[in-house]
Amino acid sequence: MDKILRIDMGAEGGPKATEEPLGDYAGMAGRALTSAIVSKEVDPLCHPLGAANKLALAPGLLSGTTAAMSGRLSVGCKSPLTGGIKEANSGGQPSQVLARLGYAAIVLEGKPKDDTLHKVFISKDGVKITPDNSLKMLGNYDLVDKIKGEYGDKIACISIGPAGEMKMSAASVACTDMELRPNRHAGRGGVGAVMGAKGVKVIVLDDTGMKMRRPKDPEKFREATKTWVEGLRKHQVTGEGLPAYGTNVLANVINEAGAYPTKNFMWGRFEGCSKISGETQAETETARGGVATHGCHRGCIIKCSGIFVDKDGHYVTKQVEYETVWAHGANCGIDDLDSIAMLDRLDDDYGLDTIEMGATIAVAMEAGLAKFGDAEAAINLLKEAGKGTPLGRILGNGAAVTGKVFGVERVPVVKGQALPAYDPRGIQGIGVTYATSPMGADHTAGYAVATNVLNVGGSLDPLKPEGQVELSRNLQIATAAVDSTGMCLFVAFAVLDQPETFQALIDMINAFYGLNLTADDVTELGKSILKNERDFNARAGFTAEHDRLPEFFKKEPLPSHNLTFQVKDEDLDTLFNW
Amino acid sequence: MDKILRIDMGAEGGPKATEEPLGDYAGMAGRALTSAIVSKEVDPLCHPLGAANKLALAPGLLSGTTAAMSGRLSVGCKSPLTGGIKEANSGGQPSQVLARLGYAAIVLEGKPKDDTLHKVFISKDGVKITPDNSLKMLGNYDLVDKIKGEYGDKIACISIGPAGEMKMSAASVACTDMELRPNRHAGRGGVGAVMGAKGVKVIVLDDTGMKMRRPKDPEKFREATKTWVEGLRKHQVTGEGLPAYGTNVLANVINEAGAYPTKNFMWGRFEGCSKISGETQAETETARGGVATHGCHRGCIIKCSGIFVDKDGHYVTKQVEYETVWAHGANCGIDDLDSIAMLDRLDDDYGLDTIEMGATIAVAMEAGLAKFGDAEAAINLLKEAGKGTPLGRILGNGAAVTGKVFGVERVPVVKGQALPAYDPRGIQGIGVTYATSPMGADHTAGYAVATNVLNVGGSLDPLKPEGQVELSRNLQIATAAVDSTGMCLFVAFAVLDQPETFQALIDMINAFYGLNLTADDVTELGKSILKNERDFNARAGFTAEHDRLPEFFKKEPLPSHNLTFQVKDEDLDTLFNW
Repeated sequence: MDKILRIDMGAEGGPKATEEPLGDYAGMAGRALTSAIVSKEVDPLCHPLGAANKLALAPGLLSGTTAAMSGRLSVGCKSPLTGGIKEANSGGQPSQVLARLGYAAIVLEGKPKDDTLHKVFISKDGVKITPDNSLKMLGNYDLVDKIKGEYGDKIACISIGPAGEMKMSAASVACTDMELRPNRHAGRGGVGAVMGAKGVKVIVLDDTGMKMRRPKDPEKFREATKTWVEGLRKHQVTGEGLPAYGTNVLANVINEAGAYPTKNFMWGRFEGCSKISGETQAETETARGGVATHGCHRGCIIKCSGIFVDKDGHYVTKQVEYETVWAHGANCGIDDLDSIAMLDRLDDDYGLDTIEMGATIAVAMEAGLAKFGDAEAAINLLKEAGKGTPLGRILGNGAAVTGKVFGVERVPVVKGQALPAYDPRGIQGIGVTYATSPMGADHTAGYAVATNVLNVGGSLDPLKPEGQVELSRNLQIATAAVDSTGMCLFVAFAVLDQPETFQALIDMINAFYGLNLTADDVTELGKSILKNERDFNARAGFTAEHDRLPEFFKKEPLPSHNLTFQVKDEDLDTLFNW
Repeated sequence: MDKILRIDMGAEGGPKATEEPLGDYAGMAGRALTSAIVSKEVDPLCHPLGAANKLALAPGLLSGTTAAMSGRLSVGCKSPLTGGIKEANSGGQPSQVLARLGYAAIVLEGKPKDDTLHKVFISKDGVKITPDNSLKMLGNYDLVDKIKGEYGDKIACISIGPAGEMKMSAASVACTDMELRPNRHAGRGGVGAVMGAKGVKVIVLDDTGMKMRRPKDPEKFREATKTWVEGLRKHQVTGEGLPAYGTNVLANVINEAGAYPTKNFMWGRFEGCSKISGETQAETETARGGVATHGCHRGCIIKCSGIFVDKDGHYVTKQVEYETVWAHGANCGIDDLDSIAMLDRLDDDYGLDTIEMGATIAVAMEAGLAKFGDAEAAINLLKEAGKGTPLGRILGNGAAVTGKVFGVERVPVVKGQALPAYDPRGIQGIGVTYATSPMGADHTAGYAVATNVLNVGGSLDPLKPEGQVELSRNLQIATAAVDSTGMCLFVAFAVLDQPETFQALIDMINAFYGLNLTADDVTELGKSILKNERDFNARAGFTAEHDRLPEFFKKEPLPSHNLTFQVKDEDLDTLFNW
């Protein structure tokens, strides 16, 4: 994993792949690498769909090793959704496979001469880029089926659906899971539109003949991974809650906390919550012959995913994530799991971010295009996006565009990106992250819900502004570092609570690379990533005024708590003072 | 003209009008007043369609007097199109009438409780606000007809069409001309959407029983107005070119200069120019029994307007302006004056900015929604906007939204507002104004075309970057001041070239108000207005990075000159250093 594969899609005579050593980027991986590449190489004022933007795909430091949970792939670019820097990451198989193929990153560059679509095949024998317009407008599922027919099933795929081809700002990059289903997504910020603008439909990875990546110190590495696994297994969230019920175990918890955004952030509790909770979902899956505990990549031991099947036992989609169940469920007033699963399936097939699309449909409902709670109407709206009708293109460009086009005032976005599944008035700490993250509203960027609600990493009153900035700051720094390791962010529960698990993570990196990093180095890594990202955004024209929640969170009290967002602007502005 | 009329559309118990003295705003009028009110009273981070935004409508210092050309009405707010401050001004009758009714400004405030539409009637007997949902979705022409039936024809109207009601970001505020036709518009920046968000369909002004405003020193005023009129009459542009052919006299000139943006700024010369030039237009009008020389308000002596009639001699629209002929013509590859006139008529009727809509349709053509040159398709696209279909709502929200929704890279906007009818690569000075004006791309904000091409106010090579920043700076300062006098900006040709005409303008103000202003005071006024506007924008999150032309003007050479935009970023950043 010591080289970068650059593919110039605009090269004279057709797309051209070149390999180069890491050079200045030595020691970087995952988000650290994608954000460094984007910050250093992309003009912050360029058009996100133009020749000057680049799409960087990078496994993490420990991807492709035997370390558990190391399957995240970072995808970075200038975001068509926010206009700022973007790193979205995904589970699934590609990160491990790409790492074993020896690549620290693939960078898609330049601008194709026409709208020919390409597939990129990468194996031990090299890189092959082939025009293939027969792939045009295929959904991710049909696409992967077709690719399997051609390349067999010892592969992993990174692909876009019709949304990416149509360059929609909510378009995702799909990654296949262990069963070669395109159901893991780098969802946020329109990274799929940039892949579409580069004319690349799918990157097929085949690591046949390649070995597991070898640590410098195998003995120490084995020891550290053992402690690592023990730590994850013994923590209540990673060892019990997530395996049993998946991420949607949160639905009842957040609803109970009165911070479960309902009907476009109008309320903090959803009357239909119990019908769509993780418990109900797991029970439904199991009863129908689906699976409630399943990993998305080899080496996953948390297994928060699962398989959602219909009433006849046929696969519909993966176990729908908490954020998606919320976005298409509570936020749209929909309490029917089957409809929500269908919406998830359609999102994955079209290649759309489920959070953005749920938020968008809720804004469309507020605009009067459908009634809150009307699942059939929601499915039809999403199908418009898949077809690329004018209405569908509006929706596929996300909540901010939809709000603007239909003249809606209550549009829950920061930096143009929709807020996820926690009301910032009911969980003030996550509001700080939404407001200040260089990514736009993003719960994963600094998951203050952990400490505000779950009592992980300490505890802090979610309804009070005090301490929230410091909490979000520390979490944003730690997250940026974790996002560079290839580790699934869910390891953070154990890492935050158990010093020996945190140490095991550092030990694994040290043993693998022959380093002597300390906890301070990890903090410095996180800071340096955020600094790169903030620097890019500043050069793209972002200021403190962009680090703000929409007006209505400051003016409309959340009913259950009768509370607005309380953290002062001047305090938000201290977040990156460290 | 010493009081402000505030109408709180969100007051308990229904809309409430109150009058107050000018107070802190004493001495201000027109753009100086609207920008001061917006800058001081509107939260720069508020939602443009929300309760916290305000719409200020203000006549100029000399409006309602006998001074020739004093009929401009300034309309200001936070712009739904740009997110920054906005002043758009319009000719027509309302400015004079409002001034004679004694109001320095009407300020629409607050947020209506529901979507009831209102009409506001203002006469010497006071203000009456009446709910009237029978006006819903009326085009401006039908609306004014209905209002005439109710209030007679001794009125002037300020109104919105369906676009404003639908809160489209390209919605204009219409003003009636001398014949009570709603064909003069404060077009830019979506001011009509803000009026729509306030629930006001029309403001009807009746100055029956009110007198012409009286100067403090009638003798000096009379003398100054005489010099003023002489000056305007003797200048070639205001005395000959504009009266004979209207603003569209520019078409051949700018086409000849190779800076007439053609087919979405792809070329600088339009092969069909002679078919849509001002000369052809005037000839066509006259031959059909229309009028080629006509004023838009009483007291206009330039008479750059006219009446465009169809082949049977029936009124279609006013003499279509240069910017509109370009936007719907050359920029869309359309060379048929009748189609262009129909597009202008539809824009005026729906209440849409013709510049924004022409730019938008060209972007839609680049996206493949219609072919360049297809007039029928352009008319059908515009009709979609009038109907408010999803496609129409996209288009009605302007070029930036349309480009985003359809994934177009070449989108000619600054701060979200479409570029007018001069290619900044062929006339570098106007590019400086487009980039830096607090209004977004706006030719009127600092009309460097005058000195770059028309040799008015000196001359400067349009193809060289040298001196353009200083030119634009001086023009932006002067324009801000002129926009506060109520004077039509076309007086600037004579004012820039003839010192005695400039002095006459100052003399009129001094004689009217009993002041002793000097040329330096006028400059200071202009600077203070720009400072207010820049300050608002900074607090709204605008930075130097927003003072940039789109990337493609720096990368794609304009064919006729083989030239990109040459003015350096660091030079643009000195514009407001005075």
